[in-house]
Amino acid sequence: MSKLKFNITMSLDGYVAGPNQSVKHPLGAGGEQLPDWVVKLKSFREMHGDGGGGDTGVNDDIVRETFAGLGATIMGRNMFGGGPGPWGKDPWKGWWGNDPPFHTPVFVLTHHAREPLVMQGGTTFTFVTDGIESALKQAKKAAGGKDVMLGGGANVAQQYLAAGLIDEMEIHVVPLLLGGGERLLDGVAGRVRLEQVRTVDGPGVTHLKYRTVS
Amino acid sequence: MSKLKFNITMSLDGYVAGPNQSVKHPLGAGGEQLPDWVVKLKSFREMHGDGGGGDTGVNDDIVRETFAGLGATIMGRNMFGGGPGPWGKDPWKGWWGNDPPFHTPVFVLTHHAREPLVMQGGTTFTFVTDGIESALKQAKKAAGGKDVMLGGGANVAQQYLAAGLIDEMEIHVVPLLLGGGERLLDGVAGRVRLEQVRTVDGPGVTHLKYRTVS
Repeated sequence: MSKLKFNITMSLDGYVAGPNQSVKHPLGAGGEQLPDWVVKLKSFREMHGDGGGGDTGVNDDIVRETFAGLGATIMGRNMFGGGPGPWGKDPWKGWWGNDPPFHTPVFVLTHHAREPLVMQGGTTFTFVTDGIESALKQAKKAAGGKDVMLGGGANVAQQYLAAGLIDEMEIHVVPLLLGGGERLLDGVAGRVRLEQVRTVDGPGVTHLKYRTVS
Repeated sequence: MSKLKFNITMSLDGYVAGPNQSVKHPLGAGGEQLPDWVVKLKSFREMHGDGGGGDTGVNDDIVRETFAGLGATIMGRNMFGGGPGPWGKDPWKGWWGNDPPFHTPVFVLTHHAREPLVMQGGTTFTFVTDGIESALKQAKKAAGGKDVMLGGGANVAQQYLAAGLIDEMEIHVVPLLLGGGERLLDGVAGRVRLEQVRTVDGPGVTHLKYRTVS
């Protein structure tokens, strides 16, 4: 059965973005260090069309496992980027250039309708304005039996967690202390119960995997 | 060289006690589940004078490793218990009965002076009113070259972390979401840098060990 999986990098003090997020600093102050562990991996470079190197090992294996068997992606408007509000005349096309790393249909949750955006390499952005359950339904259909990845950010993840719709959650904990910003697990206590699946000790990052239980 | 080590159980959303802590509910609402993983271990039962059973395995090994080579303990007034303010005529003697599980000198940080309290089994509570550095100095002296354990709670740990005095920190992360209460890592960002030492995957709990770097 197709699962909804979520994975995100979190500081040890619980933040997935530092304070003062902006278009220029989407991960806030200090938050730009959160993806340090992943951007240097071979798997990451391959996904981003740069196959010319990168680290292998435990962290690389985890990323490959995470992205194996995915048929679609869901993300919030903040993660897609371009700032809030209507899309305007020359609308933002995401952070990722012409060949985004998803290579699947991507469903972007937004309050502002927009035509689908077809990119290179198999990524199509579809903009969903009628809520998280609709996005999940569309994503599962597009995935054709494969799993769906929830890309983030924290707000969207909290909505899906609180609604009991996430099957599996992997948190990559890095030894950063951001002291403020966007907390991953606010507002979900009492709405969802988690069970530990496994932990993997990688260099500079710990991979904690949980499943939701009812 | 004698190290100051700190270990504590934390919910996945960052709390070491739930909301509404009281003398009757020292770990707050929901927080009473935090030590579930440890109280059933053989090592824990032995330390508490109940050698008649308990679980062995990964978690038990971690607890044994944590408490090996300790010569003294430091804790805050809240962890010692009995409520705030002056000690009164028939003062509180801790949560642990006549034979507390420490079996070493214990230094309790408080604003209220009190004579040392000698218990059975090698535990002596000494009440320190002149601050965290004095407590650490006294504890290291009492430990005679062995390590010193900082027992908690969060407030005292934050003071020691912010002052750069903790050498090693082990956080036992359990898959609970408490949604409020006492956060472990508030107020320390920018004051201390951490480096991941190792992670161990135990049943129902993940053991994350860090050291501070300057």
